[in-house]
Amino acid sequence: MTDPHQDLRDAIRALCATFPPEYHRRIDEERGYPEEFVAALTKAGWLAALIPEEYGGSGLGLSEASVIMEEINRAGGNSGACHGQMYNMGTLLRHGSAAQKAEYLPKIAAGELRLQSMGVTEPTTGTDTTKIKTTAERHGDRYVINGQKVWISRIQHSDLMILLARTTPLAEVTKKSLGMSIFLVDLHAAIGNGLTVKPIRNMVNHETNELFFDNLEIPAENLIGEEGMGFRYILDGLNAERALIAAECIGDGLWFIDKVTAYAKEREVFGRPIGQNQGVQFPIAEAHIEVQAAGLMRDRACALFDANLPCGTEANMAKYLAAKASWEAANACLQFHGGFGFATEYDVERKFRETRLYQVAPISTNLILSHVAEHVLGLPRSF
Amino acid sequence: MTDPHQDLRDAIRALCATFPPEYHRRIDEERGYPEEFVAALTKAGWLAALIPEEYGGSGLGLSEASVIMEEINRAGGNSGACHGQMYNMGTLLRHGSAAQKAEYLPKIAAGELRLQSMGVTEPTTGTDTTKIKTTAERHGDRYVINGQKVWISRIQHSDLMILLARTTPLAEVTKKSLGMSIFLVDLHAAIGNGLTVKPIRNMVNHETNELFFDNLEIPAENLIGEEGMGFRYILDGLNAERALIAAECIGDGLWFIDKVTAYAKEREVFGRPIGQNQGVQFPIAEAHIEVQAAGLMRDRACALFDANLPCGTEANMAKYLAAKASWEAANACLQFHGGFGFATEYDVERKFRETRLYQVAPISTNLILSHVAEHVLGLPRSF
Amino acid sequence: MTDPHQDLRDAIRALCATFPPEYHRRIDEERGYPEEFVAALTKAGWLAALIPEEYGGSGLGLSEASVIMEEINRAGGNSGACHGQMYNMGTLLRHGSAAQKAEYLPKIAAGELRLQSMGVTEPTTGTDTTKIKTTAERHGDRYVINGQKVWISRIQHSDLMILLARTTPLAEVTKKSLGMSIFLVDLHAAIGNGLTVKPIRNMVNHETNELFFDNLEIPAENLIGEEGMGFRYILDGLNAERALIAAECIGDGLWFIDKVTAYAKEREVFGRPIGQNQGVQFPIAEAHIEVQAAGLMRDRACALFDANLPCGTEANMAKYLAAKASWEAANACLQFHGGFGFATEYDVERKFRETRLYQVAPISTNLILSHVAEHVLGLPRSF
Amino acid sequence: MTDPHQDLRDAIRALCATFPPEYHRRIDEERGYPEEFVAALTKAGWLAALIPEEYGGSGLGLSEASVIMEEINRAGGNSGACHGQMYNMGTLLRHGSAAQKAEYLPKIAAGELRLQSMGVTEPTTGTDTTKIKTTAERHGDRYVINGQKVWISRIQHSDLMILLARTTPLAEVTKKSLGMSIFLVDLHAAIGNGLTVKPIRNMVNHETNELFFDNLEIPAENLIGEEGMGFRYILDGLNAERALIAAECIGDGLWFIDKVTAYAKEREVFGRPIGQNQGVQFPIAEAHIEVQAAGLMRDRACALFDANLPCGTEANMAKYLAAKASWEAANACLQFHGGFGFATEYDVERKFRETRLYQVAPISTNLILSHVAEHVLGLPRSF
Repeated sequence: MTDPHQDLRDAIRALCATFPPEYHRRIDEERGYPEEFVAALTKAGWLAALIPEEYGGSGLGLSEASVIMEEINRAGGNSGACHGQMYNMGTLLRHGSAAQKAEYLPKIAAGELRLQSMGVTEPTTGTDTTKIKTTAERHGDRYVINGQKVWISRIQHSDLMILLARTTPLAEVTKKSLGMSIFLVDLHAAIGNGLTVKPIRNMVNHETNELFFDNLEIPAENLIGEEGMGFRYILDGLNAERALIAAECIGDGLWFIDKVTAYAKEREVFGRPIGQNQGVQFPIAEAHIEVQAAGLMRDRACALFDANLPCGTEANMAKYLAAKASWEAANACLQFHGGFGFATEYDVERKFRETRLYQVAPISTNLILSHVAEHVLGLPRSF
Repeated sequence: MTDPHQDLRDAIRALCATFPPEYHRRIDEERGYPEEFVAALTKAGWLAALIPEEYGGSGLGLSEASVIMEEINRAGGNSGACHGQMYNMGTLLRHGSAAQKAEYLPKIAAGELRLQSMGVTEPTTGTDTTKIKTTAERHGDRYVINGQKVWISRIQHSDLMILLARTTPLAEVTKKSLGMSIFLVDLHAAIGNGLTVKPIRNMVNHETNELFFDNLEIPAENLIGEEGMGFRYILDGLNAERALIAAECIGDGLWFIDKVTAYAKEREVFGRPIGQNQGVQFPIAEAHIEVQAAGLMRDRACALFDANLPCGTEANMAKYLAAKASWEAANACLQFHGGFGFATEYDVERKFRETRLYQVAPISTNLILSHVAEHVLGLPRSF
Repeated sequence: MTDPHQDLRDAIRALCATFPPEYHRRIDEERGYPEEFVAALTKAGWLAALIPEEYGGSGLGLSEASVIMEEINRAGGNSGACHGQMYNMGTLLRHGSAAQKAEYLPKIAAGELRLQSMGVTEPTTGTDTTKIKTTAERHGDRYVINGQKVWISRIQHSDLMILLARTTPLAEVTKKSLGMSIFLVDLHAAIGNGLTVKPIRNMVNHETNELFFDNLEIPAENLIGEEGMGFRYILDGLNAERALIAAECIGDGLWFIDKVTAYAKEREVFGRPIGQNQGVQFPIAEAHIEVQAAGLMRDRACALFDANLPCGTEANMAKYLAAKASWEAANACLQFHGGFGFATEYDVERKFRETRLYQVAPISTNLILSHVAEHVLGLPRSF
Repeated sequence: MTDPHQDLRDAIRALCATFPPEYHRRIDEERGYPEEFVAALTKAGWLAALIPEEYGGSGLGLSEASVIMEEINRAGGNSGACHGQMYNMGTLLRHGSAAQKAEYLPKIAAGELRLQSMGVTEPTTGTDTTKIKTTAERHGDRYVINGQKVWISRIQHSDLMILLARTTPLAEVTKKSLGMSIFLVDLHAAIGNGLTVKPIRNMVNHETNELFFDNLEIPAENLIGEEGMGFRYILDGLNAERALIAAECIGDGLWFIDKVTAYAKEREVFGRPIGQNQGVQFPIAEAHIEVQAAGLMRDRACALFDANLPCGTEANMAKYLAAKASWEAANACLQFHGGFGFATEYDVERKFRETRLYQVAPISTNLILSHVAEHVLGLPRSF
């Protein structure tokens, strides 16, 4: 009944401990990118956790990958800077050709190539992905891409992007989920040659961008899997992503609880530690309980995934529970620090901003509730 | 990853299915006791789940016992009528003498003796148990009991009660948790001979009583374990009780979710099923997720218990999560039934009243939060 | 800035004080009707508050009427037993003929006739009132009624009912809100002669019933207002009803807060009053603040109504806020009484059951939110 | 029943409309100060609302002042940049000498002098103000100040500060609330001559600072009122401040509701406006109702204040309700904008960060609940 991943946790913690709060704080204030931190994680092999050993990865399971993400966030970092490198390659691994895998996976495992970006979301479609308007038209041995994407992360620190585009017009497919395809895009080649990148300044120091495609040409061999099946391929990866995001929330939640507990023990007002007040300690205890419960659901989702069993509902529920718990922990932590919670030097406000994003991305709370209502409880679709 | 208790669940469900909603509804309206239902459970051996096989029990673990309680409540019953029979004997099993165990456990296993009552709580002490005022004074081969208890359940349907009384005055003990002892009380002999029972009419059809002891004499051999150690013996049993109560909440939660989901699918207002409205389906989905998460924590608490590992925090957290989840499910179920939720014939109002009790008994939400704050997070004691 | 209704409050309080908690408790336990209490209120003229002086009433405004309801509930009573007598006559007052008003209003004011019932809701239509299936067909000088109603209150203690029935089939009207009419039904004449009453046993001691109409004949002169306009007439009365229900919730909320505050001051556990714990006092304080805020909205809704200004949104918001606040107060009160909250002799459980109903009746929380979303914020209708 | 302040609202709105969202957004991104905006408000006389006409102010009441703050925030601005100028002078007005008032108030009214800062809070005392350690020692015609303050706002854009310091050691006073005095500090003279200012970078673009006093000398004539009575003078101003902060929250709440309502109407996903989903529209409607209720409480607090009646509880409750409502509105607004809510160009994230502060400053939610529990409900003090 002891934690089977204790050694793994210890290793990540040791690495993370070499990057003190000041490091992450400075990166945030400069709106920079944690190059050294990501390099260290890459070098240690942690971001290659999910790549099979035959391709030079660690060959670990989603359970272990989730522990890595959790510990990064628990140590005060933000996995958002590098989680794409861990799981985006899953699409390639599951659906790429032998040649593609042989070419790319070892380099991704080694950190020579960064596949950090997924180009799926579009400004006018939101989560209604089958309505995407970006098109990829075959011209000989090239596909020509036109359209627009939004919320595409880490373009500035990625070499490759997986792009979803419609290859058959919606009007011509038998099912709206057909006719979309995914491609590997060489970002260095693309930017300035048909791809324009516009960064979106936002509340979190998270590199995210609008992309504009104007006759971007990509080699036909960069098609992953079968033409027209791209949407299904994307769906395949969502459960792993949600379980990992849940893990990041859990890491955040634990960070907040540790932080506020320590503060509540030492901060004295009216002659006693504020943590002696139930108005302070109860919300912290509640958040702790919710984080623990979310952790169990995350464990279960990962265990199912690693056993090749269906885990969609569990991954969604884990994401829901974890994002809710981390936000409650965040609010307790900010609130009980009083003014100090808002001061950047306490790191609370940074983590507070960061963890809020998980209620929206990669899927909103409402869509998870809709999923459970419709697909678990069998209630009518509400929209 | 499949449910290891599916066969057990199926068996309980089959038994419970022979007691339709009308049965439990009638018992509630008459403020009666489900004699036939408890008899059937007893006969099938389910209430002897935790008694070792050598004493004629089933020798199952807490995990299995929790499934039994869960399925009873999920089927529309109320485990409160009989859960004492399942776990009160634990005190005897752990701390009784060989002779006591040989005498009582087989009869309890067979249902010939019902040990359904625990006499701990007192009106003026609440959960501050070390302050109890009921005393047991040794006179030769008897103990003489004086004092008062409250919220003592199922006296009317029990043959035996375990009683906690102070044998050494608080002023004379080195630690306030010492000097209390537990005794087995033969209720038939006691009532009218020093024990007066006053039923407390309450919101739930739950037999609960005030007890008044006026020189009740009990044989000295009815002392369980060592004199003065009774409080610790009682504490030993709390974790199992909390995990089982969590299971009852989970059963309730699932009952409410099944009930309201079915209703929301079929009830049409404004030309469509009400379950198509997010304002209806989201609270149900939220409750479902919370019940599932509570279920995982319950599983963990039981697994730890069955492995003889510390499980106090997990049992408390399971109780907290489960009682919260069942109450949210209850409110969603009542609310979306509209007026019908209040009509007794829908059974919703009965289960609604019943499940509310779990926020208070056997331990209140606030005391669980205090436990987590103090014993898990290390915050100062708040009271 | 002092309370302009202090004298009125004092008078109601004095009357209510003559009916101690035991009175209301006994009525509840017996599922009886508070005959003496209602008689006393009637005799003192309080239930005729809204009837103009020319018809023998007190000619007070809705503000005063709401104070009356509030104080009844605050004193531990349940206005549900008699609020119909206060506001059902509003429909007659606004839309009845001079002859009808002259005939009925003075007797209602005097308490000789009780107009306590409104027959609107039907089992298959819920709040989608335009879909009612009960029909009234004109035959000479009679209307013949067929159909079914549900949740029709106080039939057992009423002489008259206002009934809504469709006089023109839905298929033949230009607007679905047309073609319905309201009638005054003499219950003594009707029961057994075309009207069958089936009481619905429910969680609250609230007389409510199913009604079955099988060729019930009523005199054509009992039509109120114009044929076909009944739905609009019913709508006219809803705002007053909601403001008064808000007042009842506020009275309940104050009762719970008084009750639990007193208990939290005197109940000592762990050597100090439980009210010293923030985990106890904060939820009570929150409930207090919410009740006060709801009270201000109720004041505003009533003031607008009394000034003949539109008050629909304010009445709905007052009902929403007040029902939420009373429920929070109820939960705090029940919870902090521990087991005692469930014992009938503390009255908490009775009021707890009663106040829960206000989230559902006369309009559910979700429909108020829909109203605000659609009619105040201009969002699209969601159903 | 119409809004008595409609003309005032219209005037503020017209002024604010000349500062588009881009203006406030740019100031925030640059961590700048809205000089032009504050100048315009000053020139129009709005910041002198509470200064009597005899001193060149507008002589308006707190009701009007609160409308001004509300409209600034509702227009997308942040009153935090200038609200000190409106209400800090209250202390001078109530307790200053005739000479002080004649000297300072007209210049403050004209905007020639900015009294934007209050030096009360200290790092080690939090809200336990009587424990402050900053001392003012009389030396002839000077006071010499030593100590430290924190969270002192707008020092960079203020000419004067009111400072609270202990003039008699805590050990020598009969009541701990005695022995503190307030002084007017000329910031230009002080900085660099005994006063060191250290800005605190924080989540909100709110100029706030640590102050270090090292033998700062100030003329004895700058003492306001009587020596030793400073704490009481500070308390006198708190109710007005809280009512005004409530107004700012209400303005924020309305901004969020307007913003998200407009977005929810126009944003289409899955073929329909997202505002058609109850999962979107209900939280917005709830926030709307809560903002309206908070508005009524604010109105009441201001009316009492303007009538010279006690308003402490109402001001506290208004602050509590308004800060809660604005935060719920903020979360709904951020959430339903999806990723766009996080993009700075939508302004949502900026207002989201700003409005969070109101749960902490100028008084935390928990302290308001303690106030209500102790001073309204009479429960024991919890700390």
